Amino acid sequence: MPQVIQNIPRAPQSVIDGLARAGVATVHEAQGRRGCLASAMRPIYAGAQVAGSAVTISAPPGDNWMLHVAIEQLRAGDLLVLAPTAPCDMGYFGDLLATSAVARGCKGLIIDAGVRDVRDLTAMGFPVWSRAISAQGTVKETLGDVNVPIVCAGQTIHAGDIVVADDDGVVVVRYAEAEAVLDAANKRLATEEAKRAKLAAGVLGLDLYDMRPALAAKGLKYV
Amino acid sequence: MPQVIQNIPRAPQSVIDGLARAGVATVHEAQGRRGCLASAMRPIYAGAQVAGSAVTISAPPGDNWMLHVAIEQLRAGDLLVLAPTAPCDMGYFGDLLATSAVARGCKGLIIDAGVRDVRDLTAMGFPVWSRAISAQGTVKETLGDVNVPIVCAGQTIHAGDIVVADDDGVVVVRYAEAEAVLDAANKRLATEEAKRAKLAAGVLGLDLYDMRPALAAKGLKYV
Amino acid sequence: MPQVIQNIPRAPQSVIDGLARAGVATVHEAQGRRGCLASAMRPIYAGAQVAGSAVTISAPPGDNWMLHVAIEQLRAGDLLVLAPTAPCDMGYFGDLLATSAVARGCKGLIIDAGVRDVRDLTAMGFPVWSRAISAQGTVKETLGDVNVPIVCAGQTIHAGDIVVADDDGVVVVRYAEAEAVLDAANKRLATEEAKRAKLAAGVLGLDLYDMRPALAAKGLKYV
Amino acid sequence: MPQVIQNIPRAPQSVIDGLARAGVATVHEAQGRRGCLASAMRPIYAGAQVAGSAVTISAPPGDNWMLHVAIEQLRAGDLLVLAPTAPCDMGYFGDLLATSAVARGCKGLIIDAGVRDVRDLTAMGFPVWSRAISAQGTVKETLGDVNVPIVCAGQTIHAGDIVVADDDGVVVVRYAEAEAVLDAANKRLATEEAKRAKLAAGVLGLDLYDMRPALAAKGLKYV
Amino acid sequence: MPQVIQNIPRAPQSVIDGLARAGVATVHEAQGRRGCLASAMRPIYAGAQVAGSAVTISAPPGDNWMLHVAIEQLRAGDLLVLAPTAPCDMGYFGDLLATSAVARGCKGLIIDAGVRDVRDLTAMGFPVWSRAISAQGTVKETLGDVNVPIVCAGQTIHAGDIVVADDDGVVVVRYAEAEAVLDAANKRLATEEAKRAKLAAGVLGLDLYDMRPALAAKGLKYV
Amino acid sequence: MPQVIQNIPRAPQSVIDGLARAGVATVHEAQGRRGCLASAMRPIYAGAQVAGSAVTISAPPGDNWMLHVAIEQLRAGDLLVLAPTAPCDMGYFGDLLATSAVARGCKGLIIDAGVRDVRDLTAMGFPVWSRAISAQGTVKETLGDVNVPIVCAGQTIHAGDIVVADDDGVVVVRYAEAEAVLDAANKRLATEEAKRAKLAAGVLGLDLYDMRPALAAKGLKYV
Repeated sequence: MPQVIQNIPRAPQSVIDGLARAGVATVHEAQGRRGCLASAMRPIYAGAQVAGSAVTISAPPGDNWMLHVAIEQLRAGDLLVLAPTAPCDMGYFGDLLATSAVARGCKGLIIDAGVRDVRDLTAMGFPVWSRAISAQGTVKETLGDVNVPIVCAGQTIHAGDIVVADDDGVVVVRYAEAEAVLDAANKRLATEEAKRAKLAAGVLGLDLYDMRPALAAKGLKYV
Repeated sequence: MPQVIQNIPRAPQSVIDGLARAGVATVHEAQGRRGCLASAMRPIYAGAQVAGSAVTISAPPGDNWMLHVAIEQLRAGDLLVLAPTAPCDMGYFGDLLATSAVARGCKGLIIDAGVRDVRDLTAMGFPVWSRAISAQGTVKETLGDVNVPIVCAGQTIHAGDIVVADDDGVVVVRYAEAEAVLDAANKRLATEEAKRAKLAAGVLGLDLYDMRPALAAKGLKYV
Repeated sequence: MPQVIQNIPRAPQSVIDGLARAGVATVHEAQGRRGCLASAMRPIYAGAQVAGSAVTISAPPGDNWMLHVAIEQLRAGDLLVLAPTAPCDMGYFGDLLATSAVARGCKGLIIDAGVRDVRDLTAMGFPVWSRAISAQGTVKETLGDVNVPIVCAGQTIHAGDIVVADDDGVVVVRYAEAEAVLDAANKRLATEEAKRAKLAAGVLGLDLYDMRPALAAKGLKYV
Repeated sequence: MPQVIQNIPRAPQSVIDGLARAGVATVHEAQGRRGCLASAMRPIYAGAQVAGSAVTISAPPGDNWMLHVAIEQLRAGDLLVLAPTAPCDMGYFGDLLATSAVARGCKGLIIDAGVRDVRDLTAMGFPVWSRAISAQGTVKETLGDVNVPIVCAGQTIHAGDIVVADDDGVVVVRYAEAEAVLDAANKRLATEEAKRAKLAAGVLGLDLYDMRPALAAKGLKYV
Repeated sequence: MPQVIQNIPRAPQSVIDGLARAGVATVHEAQGRRGCLASAMRPIYAGAQVAGSAVTISAPPGDNWMLHVAIEQLRAGDLLVLAPTAPCDMGYFGDLLATSAVARGCKGLIIDAGVRDVRDLTAMGFPVWSRAISAQGTVKETLGDVNVPIVCAGQTIHAGDIVVADDDGVVVVRYAEAEAVLDAANKRLATEEAKRAKLAAGVLGLDLYDMRPALAAKGLKYV
Repeated sequence: MPQVIQNIPRAPQSVIDGLARAGVATVHEAQGRRGCLASAMRPIYAGAQVAGSAVTISAPPGDNWMLHVAIEQLRAGDLLVLAPTAPCDMGYFGDLLATSAVARGCKGLIIDAGVRDVRDLTAMGFPVWSRAISAQGTVKETLGDVNVPIVCAGQTIHAGDIVVADDDGVVVVRYAEAEAVLDAANKRLATEEAKRAKLAAGVLGLDLYDMRPALAAKGLKYV
């Protein structure tokens, strides 16, 4: 039953790049407030902002064998996305695997488990979003799956979905919706500039968004 | 029933500045080991050290409407302090709200929930202490309250109480006790310098604080 | 019953230094994937990498009296290792205790509880790995023990065991095994260099480690 | 500074009994969805449903000395309500203290920490709502306070406030609001009976509460 | 965008009943160790064992409006399955909603959030598996979706998937796989009886499953 | 390196039985407030109270192979005690393993991980104290150790140590200290009866333990 699916769809690079530029919070809003992974997923260093097609991995707790299998499936620009089949905080991934992934053009790792060698990964500029940092390594005994749908940190992710990650966390965009979400995100960014300028000039959100009537209608009292 | 209380007391700026300089750990000791918020409240970036009068917000889970209302109540030097009415890790606050708050002179945010746009907030130098970082935004549907007493991360906070925050976390000082606490904090700081010099010179705490008799009386054995 | 054991074994400094250079992840693998403390133990700042003989402290929740007692037992190069007798996140240790510990040659603190004054500790270059950061200080009322075996963050630690800590976390090496573990770690490091070069050149782990036959034998299917 | 406040207000017994009968969920709604303690507060056995005037205790982590002090302050029908000054899961209270409390007419304990001897307490019919069950006992070394305002499991509680507890958890009612809340709760209970009968007969909530227009106005689509 | 999908597939009742009889642990094994929801999902009372077609609900944190909408979609034998769009422990569901659901033939509720009125629900024999028990009720302000795919406690669930729940927790079976899983489960149950008899008679698992050669081959030493 | 130690010490049955009768809280006090496992270790059903010699198991996360190995090492009256080498909530143990363990005279299981088939185990009267209940089973791929020292839920346990468990949790008694601890426990029980009678008659703990002078000396004020 364990399997590796070798052909996965990938969105156009320009769309992926656009989603990376928009960032996680904007993409989340642009697609109707959906798709954020759990807030426990944190970057190992600040400042990275990436997007890529997901190469997904379902791995047993404490077993990173499938990462080696998945790396062969990478194309330049992809992200590795791993979910363990039970909660696990062990360090599945370190600098040797990162070296191998970088050689295949991989742009980062999203892992609902632990990672190690974080000083080396930081020095390499290889970003990771993980639930834990742990030096405790894993074994290579039990099979898992590559490029099957997984649930990672509370979100279903299919191979080829676009994953966006930055200092705010991680969001997934369905492959089929990528262009529409990018359009919506770009529109959102365009209107935000004007809003920011007004707010910086002292206009209140209460007035900018015309909230006072709705607040009064709901019954808010000023004392 | 939802209400906005518009007049709140504020301690003298010199007292607030003095408490900021003293820092959280010293203020906590100076007021008799009271007032620390839960240790899960962490700064989004290292190095900020602030104090301000609390403008308090009680907000429903996943709803940040009241932040817009609260910003109108800010005066220069205030801090926004938000507690959700049930545990929630969503991102209530981001760079647009921060831009608006800064325009009113706000010095930072304390939030027992999530925050987003942390890269922008860091670039702006707008400090936040929060329980979570999350790109997942909120809605504007349900009212809450502004400047009522709240429980934020385990401490009761009234509007106008002075909140102090630094890399060690957050502490609240009652409005009516602010000057007395500052006096006690300053005395504590003065004596710490002398202690630090002695300890650096190799004097043991056991001797500096004359602990040996009490330890022996309690029954400590050296083997 | 509370006691301070004054004579503890210490491994040769060259062995300790070698383990520090190897780092936590390598040491963990070299001793058969054993000894990692819980992943909740995190450094207060990035980049420190230390090893030292453990001076162990068993302390009541919310009581740091025994830290003063333990500091007298330190020799140059030692690490303080504290476990509370019940879960506790309070700030047992701050800049004054660090000043005193540094005067005795202490290289850092491992504490399954909280620490405070983290800005000062960072400025001093005094590394701490802790479960929490908390400004909430402790009392000095109840005795504990120094240099007895403790369980710290899930691992048994005896006085004189070598503790290694870096950005990946903390690992303990038994005193009697220190040289053997260092040998194994050094061998591991030597072979890693060659592997890293091959992986960087694009050789897959699947081939480098000859994994394909075992994967096929276990039943992995490529689709 | 540690103090015992000896005179506290108490609501009329009939009001307290009425609130007990209404139960926690109804009281929470009746006072405008306020006052619930954190859901981690669980009963040690199912089926108890009580209300009483709060005798409050602020105690250090791992120290139950103040419970002995508080028991002297109990009157028949009161509840003990304890909050530690830092998170602690130790067993502050067991069958001997319960025997003493029962002799004073105490109806139960609410404790944001641990409790032990739960088999004996269950046999005695002495209900406890706690965050943990733990056999690990405490010391008697450090003072705390009795009948000061405390924050217990996320809610501010003053001595004399009415605390209601059942299988759903715990809610606090302000002393000054007790009668009004009871009136609102009783009205709510009266209307619930009619609603329950209709729902049991197959009337949908969508129709009973006339929700369809509002759902349509918000944009809900049936597919 | 919020929608209610009105036509969902349902497996034959005999298959659903068979899966209920097999129980969660057996179903989990029978489908290749997949499908278990997070272990934090616990029954409100012991002894219930049910299966049903999932009517899925995606609801905002702290808002139970969609439960009323979903109840109209129930057919006899169905289970309600709710996932909030962000972590939330509030009490979405109580005895009035249960009365309404029972009137539609609903067999229980699976909710990755909180539930209340647990004494009444227990008396009614309406089973619930939830992450929390909380008296804190919710509002009816924001739309969600009914019968869309959701992630509930770590598993993707589609409307019409079969959900099985007992004292061990909850497992989901894909609609299209239900009969095959039932066959595998029944085979497993048949062989377990023979194994149980041998183990009860004192035959060791080491011998029953012929494990000794594999253990020796892996290097296990008896000392 | 994985090993099974076949000869372990066992305390006299009368001592073990005496410790079971004393119960966890009393044993914890009798040995100087030491030895309690973490409070997250809860019984799967109420009312069991057992003690036994520990047969210890160190197992990889998600792998229960060593349980089969350990069962062969059981003698009548023993307890199985399992600690995973990394945090894991999977169901390592169910009714088939319990049937096998009971056939060897095993009195229960202490496991810092998950258990399943809890309804069957309850019907069998086989008590388990665990961190989780989970239907998610494990594999049999990787070796561990039997009867080596382990850290289970925060306590070091050696094979042959006596483990006591009841509704309050679990405590470990060192093999070499078992008789002394039993003596101390029995003395404690004897004095508790007299205390209970006095407290039930209304004597306050403040007077029974003569606490008033010490409280006054520490500075407690009555207001």
